[in-house]
Amino acid sequence: MAKFMDVHSGFVGVTAEQLNEAHGRDLAIEDAEGVHFERAWMDPVLGKVFCLSSGPSKEAVMRIHTQAGHPTEEVYELSVEVA
Amino acid sequence: MAKFMDVHSGFVGVTAEQLNEAHGRDLAIEDAEGVHFERAWMDPVLGKVFCLSSGPSKEAVMRIHTQAGHPTEEVYELSVEVA
Repeated sequence: MAKFMDVHSGFVGVTAEQLNEAHGRDLAIEDAEGVHFERAWMDPVLGKVFCLSSGPSKEAVMRIHTQAGHPTEEVYELSVEVA
Repeated sequence: MAKFMDVHSGFVGVTAEQLNEAHGRDLAIEDAEGVHFERAWMDPVLGKVFCLSSGPSKEAVMRIHTQAGHPTEEVYELSVEVA
């Protein structure tokens, strides 16, 4: 399993409830690709969303986001983490 | 306290040890601005680093990163989070 961060743009003015709904659509179908979306954070002023996930590949993450209605091409594989 | 995600580009080929050193330079001085860097993730193939932090302002986060030697203008305030 690898870890990924994906980035979505254009979410200016989106509410917490709307983000929850969008994230819920990912969670509802993520098992089909062996992906798990762990957390998502949003800056609704600049319209950016960051999703942290684990899964078998970048393409698997993209397919879930596309099927859930919020595709992104910007997915990074996080092979290094520090805390 | 607000939460922030900042993004750094150009870290292609950086090692885990180098990221640890860079993150350590942030941790060593973060108290001066009331900032705390919680985690950092890196995609060394595409050269992206994401840092999750908390602090009083975007500018405080930027000042620590600048003083630590890895400035970025790309800092997002994460007023919404879902898990």
